[in-house]
Amino acid sequence: MRPITEAYKDFPILQKEHNGHRLVYLDSGATTQIPQMVISRLTDHMLHHNGNPHRGSHILAIEASEAYENARDRVVEFINAREREEVIFTRNTTESMNLIAHSYGANFLSEGDKIVITVAEHHANLVTWQYVAEKTGATLEYMYLDDSGHLKDGEIDKIDESTKIVAFAHVSNVLGMEFPVKDLIAKAHSVGAVVVLDGAQSTPHMKVDVQALDCDFFVFSGHKMCASQGIGVVYGKRALLEKMPPFLLGGDMIEYVKEQSTTFNELPYKFEAGTPNAHGAVSLHAAIDYLESFGMDAIEAHEESLVSYVLPKMLEIPHVQVLGSSNPREKHGVIAFTIDDVHPHDVATILDSKGICVRSGHHCAQPLGAFFKVAASTRLSMYLYTRKEDLDAFLEVLKTVRSVMGFKD
Amino acid sequence: MRPITEAYKDFPILQKEHNGHRLVYLDSGATTQIPQMVISRLTDHMLHHNGNPHRGSHILAIEASEAYENARDRVVEFINAREREEVIFTRNTTESMNLIAHSYGANFLSEGDKIVITVAEHHANLVTWQYVAEKTGATLEYMYLDDSGHLKDGEIDKIDESTKIVAFAHVSNVLGMEFPVKDLIAKAHSVGAVVVLDGAQSTPHMKVDVQALDCDFFVFSGHKMCASQGIGVVYGKRALLEKMPPFLLGGDMIEYVKEQSTTFNELPYKFEAGTPNAHGAVSLHAAIDYLESFGMDAIEAHEESLVSYVLPKMLEIPHVQVLGSSNPREKHGVIAFTIDDVHPHDVATILDSKGICVRSGHHCAQPLGAFFKVAASTRLSMYLYTRKEDLDAFLEVLKTVRSVMGFKD
Repeated sequence: MRPITEAYKDFPILQKEHNGHRLVYLDSGATTQIPQMVISRLTDHMLHHNGNPHRGSHILAIEASEAYENARDRVVEFINAREREEVIFTRNTTESMNLIAHSYGANFLSEGDKIVITVAEHHANLVTWQYVAEKTGATLEYMYLDDSGHLKDGEIDKIDESTKIVAFAHVSNVLGMEFPVKDLIAKAHSVGAVVVLDGAQSTPHMKVDVQALDCDFFVFSGHKMCASQGIGVVYGKRALLEKMPPFLLGGDMIEYVKEQSTTFNELPYKFEAGTPNAHGAVSLHAAIDYLESFGMDAIEAHEESLVSYVLPKMLEIPHVQVLGSSNPREKHGVIAFTIDDVHPHDVATILDSKGICVRSGHHCAQPLGAFFKVAASTRLSMYLYTRKEDLDAFLEVLKTVRSVMGFKD
Repeated sequence: MRPITEAYKDFPILQKEHNGHRLVYLDSGATTQIPQMVISRLTDHMLHHNGNPHRGSHILAIEASEAYENARDRVVEFINAREREEVIFTRNTTESMNLIAHSYGANFLSEGDKIVITVAEHHANLVTWQYVAEKTGATLEYMYLDDSGHLKDGEIDKIDESTKIVAFAHVSNVLGMEFPVKDLIAKAHSVGAVVVLDGAQSTPHMKVDVQALDCDFFVFSGHKMCASQGIGVVYGKRALLEKMPPFLLGGDMIEYVKEQSTTFNELPYKFEAGTPNAHGAVSLHAAIDYLESFGMDAIEAHEESLVSYVLPKMLEIPHVQVLGSSNPREKHGVIAFTIDDVHPHDVATILDSKGICVRSGHHCAQPLGAFFKVAASTRLSMYLYTRKEDLDAFLEVLKTVRSVMGFKD
């Protein structure tokens, strides 16, 4: 295994300067940077092995098919899926969620059924269920949090006999916290509900084992784990995927097409219409190889040590408020915060002027903001290439924000 | 303008050897190869300007947004759309078709309405309409062809007062022929029908002007025009896009999300849920710049000269049958053919053994095969990097196919 403290050297963008300052990238929760090794593997594929997978018997079509299907096998291994039929490539987590909502939700729910999610969900795992509820007559119910970002006592009991779907983030993209995933999945299964786990913020940062989790669906994006944009994954248990109708229609996902009727291909191809993004898949394969050259446990430990370093120092700065838990061990590389009387966009702009990239806004989780009465916040989010020096640079500017804005203290 | 005969030098993959032969790529209808210049622009973006568009106020988010939106503006200019609100990025032509079928077709058609398509459509422009018909109670009617691949007399009159959608390929991916696009669009508009034009095989090969065509929707893919996989386009007239509900749901396409309801973003973002594929968009921008460095008219003329060279020579070979028109001026770089008594897969395999890449199969157009009673065929398809030497190599092997298979003549 390579030492993780060397990882930053693999990312040319981290050598960039901005406004005369070294660029400090603390927005990995939005999208991650791409190591030279992933770009080299992708470029090699595009320059020497490019073709349309599944569409021909010539050498380039075969090489492209192999690259694409090898990437699928790599994902199967990475998340410990049972079999390759359970891993479907999509564009991103959002498309993955739409596939589940349209093909499962809209077809297998009906009036009187209940969908239970948390108030902290990303819009992709929320607006999709509003759609299913509207479409089927099911109701959408929320589990609420206490001030420290934990599920309130008793909220889990909203999962009852009428519940058909329980959907939640493995790790919240705002709070950085893991929900009690084992308890929620056990409770859901005890009432026969299907569990949709949003792995967008967990998969890049910790070892994921979908069989151990026993979730029914699991989704994530390549671009949040060092791959290129435009590639994502749906994992689904085979029995569920088998009974679902296809989502997108077109080439590759069909078996026989007659003028008035069509039969569909087998898994996983039934859900992959049109020319696949083999380029994206190749980049995801390379990214997994890259991450595992350090080890997912090492990545998780690295981020925990970074949070343990920066979070107490943030809380020492007057007027800084952290959303959710203040316990570093409960934060997975993501810290959202506010500064009293300063708009989060101003916080981000002041940081940007010193070369520090953080995100401000509602983080695609407006109902969470409404619930906490914090419409917007600033978020720093880390990854394997983040260093203590990055956090020192961040803290140094953070301390000045209120004075830059004209406050005396 | 650069001379188009030099284009092949920009594609490193065309230097590849296979089975001791120079690789000859004649499968550009499936996917095109990528010039070094596009890969360099993409790599530069990924290495130095990578971020999540629209999601932050820091330098990398801004650079990524600019790159993504500049790519949109380039597409607007390339197809001569009226305004940027009319150009939506998707994953590929297939997703573009699904967007139209779900958001327009399924919402604005009803029982008694008619959808008219040709029997030559790609599955992406066919299975999607089967879905809309099943969903809404509309009927799906086909316009048929004569033996030379032209619409039969009178078929256009199937477009009548009950017709709400007329969908067809600008250029057929099997026949390589252009349908009478002006007549069909005029007829469709005379009865108030909406025209969906599948530009997957036209956009890469000729100058497209959506305002001059006056189609209502137009779709195409980046990977068939020298860009990377995973990026496609829907053009739609603003009045139609405005009244359509969104297709995919999630981040970026929303305005306000409350627990039980959501309002949506304005065009074009209403149709772009989740993290956009800025990498794909950057590659498409570069690809358009690359193609226009030669000029679309020059590309069209180059392909016409190639077809004029190879098609008569193919027809001189005994037992070779070309699908559709034998007039080179009616073929846009695509020639599908059969050899009597030899399976198309065997034709492709024999060609591949000599380094020549062609496609065999149903070309995602099974109803066309059934109509012509030719379940499968072999297809060569060209692009700006194709040379006469490539076609000579192809012809040389083509002549031997029957004897390799043991036939005496």
